[in-house]
Amino acid sequence: MSDAAFMARAIALSHDGVAAGGGPFGAVVVRNGVIIGEGRNNVVPGRDPTAHAEVMALRDACARTGSHDLSGAVIYTSCEPCPMCLGAIWWARCAEVVYGNGRAEAAGIGFDDAAIYEEVARPIDSRALPLRRLMAAEAFSAFQAWADKADKTPY
Amino acid sequence: MSDAAFMARAIALSHDGVAAGGGPFGAVVVRNGVIIGEGRNNVVPGRDPTAHAEVMALRDACARTGSHDLSGAVIYTSCEPCPMCLGAIWWARCAEVVYGNGRAEAAGIGFDDAAIYEEVARPIDSRALPLRRLMAAEAFSAFQAWADKADKTPY
Repeated sequence: MSDAAFMARAIALSHDGVAAGGGPFGAVVVRNGVIIGEGRNNVVPGRDPTAHAEVMALRDACARTGSHDLSGAVIYTSCEPCPMCLGAIWWARCAEVVYGNGRAEAAGIGFDDAAIYEEVARPIDSRALPLRRLMAAEAFSAFQAWADKADKTPY
Repeated sequence: MSDAAFMARAIALSHDGVAAGGGPFGAVVVRNGVIIGEGRNNVVPGRDPTAHAEVMALRDACARTGSHDLSGAVIYTSCEPCPMCLGAIWWARCAEVVYGNGRAEAAGIGFDDAAIYEEVARPIDSRALPLRRLMAAEAFSAFQAWADKADKTPY
């Protein structure tokens, strides 16, 4: 399959998303020329705010391959990823993102990621969503347990 | 339950995460003084790069309450959220984040979110993870379908 065919599949999934009562977003994860994961937006039907197409496709690829690590994979998404999805793609160690719609088009139909991009870039004390620190010493105990653990699997 | 009790529960979950072979992170979602969702890091055991404690707790809260919208909820997390989790918290419409460990402590035990924070803040053409645009016109067709749909549920 070609680059265009992978994107065409992501776009087809974005239409499926609309038909299923979700948002108009689809994505596929490709490695070595083969689709290893697919997803469409399922936020409203699945009652899950994290069920963006990219997250769904990454989770599908990880379930199919049996690993949280998708190194070398390319994700084709019908729209530029939001910060949540970009973070998920980063954690999954994908090598490239290919996207169709841009954030401007998304904002034009009511999905405005600009505020989240701005929010993530702000220092903690300037955020719109307030953050407050509590019980730092107690919280550190689990970090110490992790640091001391001999048989851990880092990721 | 008090503020401190909610954070203590998040910290207890972070210890559970280590014991279960995951990372040392836990979180609870609270609304109207009651815990409505809990999560611990499950990336390695669950083979899911999106299974951070905050995402798990948000998904649990949404499953329990039957809604993708957690407006008014507070999330207590044993560590400052990464950009993926901050995005998820934003999409879930939480009102506040209370955290224990900071990003510096996380980096100190090998979980360095700084690169992701920098990445998300960069313009597309300056990203470390390459993004490429393809088939924008075709991709827009699903956005048009969404815009034209009379019975859609925006979120």
